[in-house]
Amino acid sequence: MSFSTALTDAAARVQARLDAALADREDLPVVHAMRYAVQGGKRLRGFLVLESARLHGIAPEAAVSAAASIEALHAYSLVHDDMPCMDDDDLRRGLPTVHRKWDECTAVLAGDALQTLAFELLADPALGSAEVRIELVASLAKASGAEGMVLGQALDIAAETAAVPLTLDQITHLQAGKTGALIRWSAEAGAILGQADRVPLRRYATALGLAFQIADDILDVEGDAEKAGKRLQKDAEAGKATFVSLLGLDGAKARARALVEEAEAALAPYGPEAGTLIEAARFVISRES
Amino acid sequence: MSFSTALTDAAARVQARLDAALADREDLPVVHAMRYAVQGGKRLRGFLVLESARLHGIAPEAAVSAAASIEALHAYSLVHDDMPCMDDDDLRRGLPTVHRKWDECTAVLAGDALQTLAFELLADPALGSAEVRIELVASLAKASGAEGMVLGQALDIAAETAAVPLTLDQITHLQAGKTGALIRWSAEAGAILGQADRVPLRRYATALGLAFQIADDILDVEGDAEKAGKRLQKDAEAGKATFVSLLGLDGAKARARALVEEAEAALAPYGPEAGTLIEAARFVISRES
Repeated sequence: MSFSTALTDAAARVQARLDAALADREDLPVVHAMRYAVQGGKRLRGFLVLESARLHGIAPEAAVSAAASIEALHAYSLVHDDMPCMDDDDLRRGLPTVHRKWDECTAVLAGDALQTLAFELLADPALGSAEVRIELVASLAKASGAEGMVLGQALDIAAETAAVPLTLDQITHLQAGKTGALIRWSAEAGAILGQADRVPLRRYATALGLAFQIADDILDVEGDAEKAGKRLQKDAEAGKATFVSLLGLDGAKARARALVEEAEAALAPYGPEAGTLIEAARFVISRES
Repeated sequence: MSFSTALTDAAARVQARLDAALADREDLPVVHAMRYAVQGGKRLRGFLVLESARLHGIAPEAAVSAAASIEALHAYSLVHDDMPCMDDDDLRRGLPTVHRKWDECTAVLAGDALQTLAFELLADPALGSAEVRIELVASLAKASGAEGMVLGQALDIAAETAAVPLTLDQITHLQAGKTGALIRWSAEAGAILGQADRVPLRRYATALGLAFQIADDILDVEGDAEKAGKRLQKDAEAGKATFVSLLGLDGAKARARALVEEAEAALAPYGPEAGTLIEAARFVISRES
């Protein structure tokens, strides 16, 4: 299966699982907003879960709740991140953000309930033994809380009011939390499900996550807002240090390419079966949204 | 042990567990706000976990992570509930609310990370087998998400703009989610930890939760804001239907007393060992904060 077919297939499976999880709920704005917030997106994280599971002989049906979980968690972080007190964004994936379409109160509650849903999905018996499921819970909590994603968001906010711009090391640390932690969890999930060594996938995902963020910074400078479906040139306007401001546009592109090679090398133990994950790394630095 | 000693003991154990969980974190406002938000409070939910565990022969050391978990979850809900777009409160437990002491952005992130912490704590191996821990995760997700606590909060918000005040049935449904769901989970946690029948504790906690909310409505009318540590008379000002507005003050008090008797009867299978839980139910309708 090619990368683009695998990504489309993963997106459909994830959406169906999220739709099922959000069916038969009360007719309330918070429920409508949850369904709205889990629509669309590339589903890269869900794809990483399903592909890393496949590398360990796990069928998509036995991994899809973990894929849906990370996409619910990612959706919660976007809903809260877009709020006026955070990034104050009006558009997401080309559509009004939740607090614009409804209100801030609904955005807070929908985000909160999407985080809960992420953990609820990991309790699905289809994912395997209780040992496997509780390990998924423990590692997702670590990746998403104040030692992972929220740490990165908090460092990002602190950077906005800092007297001096961040250094390359500081930005790398920030991004390892903000975007890296969920990407690492997604790729490691397959090894957790397969009760296998997590090191190769962790190395792959660490390089991939950083390449993803560098590509985001490049997109913020060079991208087309319409294709991206969100406001661009935000970082330059805010005077924030980015990989582009620190490395230059060519330097950032070279670094992203080197990281993709690192990601590729990390997957050597899996042989040709890892082809789609390697294609995913190449996609990440060439995407337009 | 008397109820008040057991409550004090539970509060100390819960605080120590939360302090340990939040030690050695980066020096950031979000981390300070998390520590601040888990200070104080009656710790009734944590007490219910430890006492229901004791009824099943589970030592406090083997239940305290579940007690700390529900208090972290409760704290997250208060931090978000107090925000300007929700209840817009300046005081909580007699101190400035998180968004007043820091800012809204810190309140969003600290609440988010406290929810994550609640699930992280349930992965603690000290709580027992993986089966027990994943069942705690699944049931807490059900109790706190858009089918439990968040559902109650959303119904509460919808009621504020509804053309007609809520009926007694509607308020009972709302409160079963908003305050009842976490109280039920707390009392049932001991039965989950002990892999025992949950029905008696569920019946106890359902009556207790409703009595708790009726007492809250009475306190809102009759209470002393200084002792309560928060703004009172909010419901009357907002023209909201409450148990007091629907049943009258005497009717509400009679209903609360009847519920305490129901709670007491539900614990009959446990005999005299359940004395502190019965005292807790009596305390709930006599408290001043």
